[in-house]
Amino acid sequence: MLQIGRDVYLFDSGLMDLRERFPMPAADEVEAPRLTAIFQTHYHADHAQGLLSLRWGEGMSLPVYGPDDAVGFADLYKHPGILDFSHTLAPFQCLTLVDNDTGSVTVTALPLEHSRPTLGYLIEVSKGKAIAYLTDTKGLSPEVLALLRAKAVDYVLVDCTYPPGVKAKGHHHLHEALALVPQIPAKAFYLTHIDHSLETYLIQHPEQLPTGVQLAQDGMCFDLSVA
Amino acid sequence: MLQIGRDVYLFDSGLMDLRERFPMPAADEVEAPRLTAIFQTHYHADHAQGLLSLRWGEGMSLPVYGPDDAVGFADLYKHPGILDFSHTLAPFQCLTLVDNDTGSVTVTALPLEHSRPTLGYLIEVSKGKAIAYLTDTKGLSPEVLALLRAKAVDYVLVDCTYPPGVKAKGHHHLHEALALVPQIPAKAFYLTHIDHSLETYLIQHPEQLPTGVQLAQDGMCFDLSVA
Repeated sequence: MLQIGRDVYLFDSGLMDLRERFPMPAADEVEAPRLTAIFQTHYHADHAQGLLSLRWGEGMSLPVYGPDDAVGFADLYKHPGILDFSHTLAPFQCLTLVDNDTGSVTVTALPLEHSRPTLGYLIEVSKGKAIAYLTDTKGLSPEVLALLRAKAVDYVLVDCTYPPGVKAKGHHHLHEALALVPQIPAKAFYLTHIDHSLETYLIQHPEQLPTGVQLAQDGMCFDLSVA
Repeated sequence: MLQIGRDVYLFDSGLMDLRERFPMPAADEVEAPRLTAIFQTHYHADHAQGLLSLRWGEGMSLPVYGPDDAVGFADLYKHPGILDFSHTLAPFQCLTLVDNDTGSVTVTALPLEHSRPTLGYLIEVSKGKAIAYLTDTKGLSPEVLALLRAKAVDYVLVDCTYPPGVKAKGHHHLHEALALVPQIPAKAFYLTHIDHSLETYLIQHPEQLPTGVQLAQDGMCFDLSVA
């Protein structure tokens, strides 16, 4: 999730308890965090299943930004409830979330290489940092690599699902993910979408993670407000 | 859910926190309740979404009994994890859960009238009580009514979604549900699958619920062990 002031932008919705995590603040709770929009990378179950219960409500509309996917997930398009799936993003489309005296925050959709239409997201804070969220994907297109190189990206979160040698469609094994590191001039890389088999492998082979690359953890925070 | 000793049989899996509600007991917790099987009425999201996270595990298999539905829900058939969807039940098929010196417990599948293949379930305890769970349905076939009349059913839980006059495919409004009451000689009827609009209507018109009919409540318990 990305939080700007009280506005919370959720990136993917695979958790099953989103209603409990993001209750709608009462009218007089003027500073309480509130879920403002959702960015979907794609519509596989593990990234979208939390929307099944989050959708039921009244008197509000929650925009869902995501790839142009004709199918979506389960019956979400048929019974969207409070969710508005009309906000599909074209590859490389840039959305401005904030633009005022204190600066701007933009989100750029990056087409990824997966078994379903999938977008990564580059979040840029004008007077702060930039972070790229790149899951689920196997490889990055020359256009995406060129864009990431052109930007001063600070942090890269990238799909790394399996130990070396495991061939999988749409996900990196460790060596495939690490092959991207020298291609993007970022301050730090974080591996995400980690299968239990990769975690076990890295406990046994900790030396396989080079300097500047680490496993992403649940609850990890990045302060993007300062350059 | 139906609990027999330590064995828990879940009827539908729409709750999002099934893993937290039904943790697998450790090997030395020999009396702790354990989820043994799941009975699905059908594969709509509100009855099946909890399986999306429950399916991930290792070293066990959990049978899912339910209607013969070619589609299932979302990607559950494609990625079943620990769930075994091979246990489809034919209409009126009877399954014996327990049969020993203390008596027997059987579950009979009752074909219902819904927009997807849907089964109700009649649970019978040989030296105790019988309960019929009949959601989601609009009407009951002559064959199902005949079977329920032939059995000494104690409790009937029946679909009653909307206030009087609301026309809906596959669900009863209040008058449609109440029309079933004189057709089944049961001790008590409980209305379930209650929409907010019906609850509001019944707060304003409490006299519309006849004697012997009440709203089912979350957490309600029935002791079926004694006749």
